Amino acid sequence: MSGIAKTPEPPYYAVIFTSERTAGDNGYSAMGDRMVGLASAQPGFLGVESVRDEQGVGITVSYWASLEAIAHWKQHAVHQAAQKLGKAEWYQRFGLRVCKVERDQFFEM
Amino acid sequence: MSGIAKTPEPPYYAVIFTSERTAGDNGYSAMGDRMVGLASAQPGFLGVESVRDEQGVGITVSYWASLEAIAHWKQHAVHQAAQKLGKAEWYQRFGLRVCKVERDQFFEM
Repeated sequence: MSGIAKTPEPPYYAVIFTSERTAGDNGYSAMGDRMVGLASAQPGFLGVESVRDEQGVGITVSYWASLEAIAHWKQHAVHQAAQKLGKAEWYQRFGLRVCKVERDQFFEM
Repeated sequence: MSGIAKTPEPPYYAVIFTSERTAGDNGYSAMGDRMVGLASAQPGFLGVESVRDEQGVGITVSYWASLEAIAHWKQHAVHQAAQKLGKAEWYQRFGLRVCKVERDQFFEM
């Protein structure tokens, strides 16, 4: 699997989630896999890119067809439970940005 | 230094650069540091977040005040030379997306 999401022609939307983890896994990896699987099944989901380094800093970008699709996923009951655990257990801090992708470009050697 | 950029109130712009590296450093790290330093000195630069994992997948998000600031940085002569080296030496593939950040939210434990 490539680390680069295959998205349609712009415009579409991106949610940039940048986070710093607490120490230890504490169920984080399993929940992360579950959230990616669940998000992928939501209406309007276009793709996801996710990287975390050895210092515990991570950037996850999910791509969506519309703001409505993002709002729908935000309200999903299982995702809401994960968001609460994220604040209580897994993240020291995070930033979340909702963006409209206006143009894109891809390169393959 | 926090891994999360301190950006002003939206709207502002984000460039999401997702890449897969070739093997070996080949001068990449030094150029990366130089580009961050140089970008930070450009007009309209607001911040940068950058993560690369052990598999060589990286996401760098730079934040800018305007599309003009992004275009200006894209055309910078030293940055142009780095872009050529990136395609020739450092990246197997990449995706680049230019976005307008419409809203954001931050959390600190």
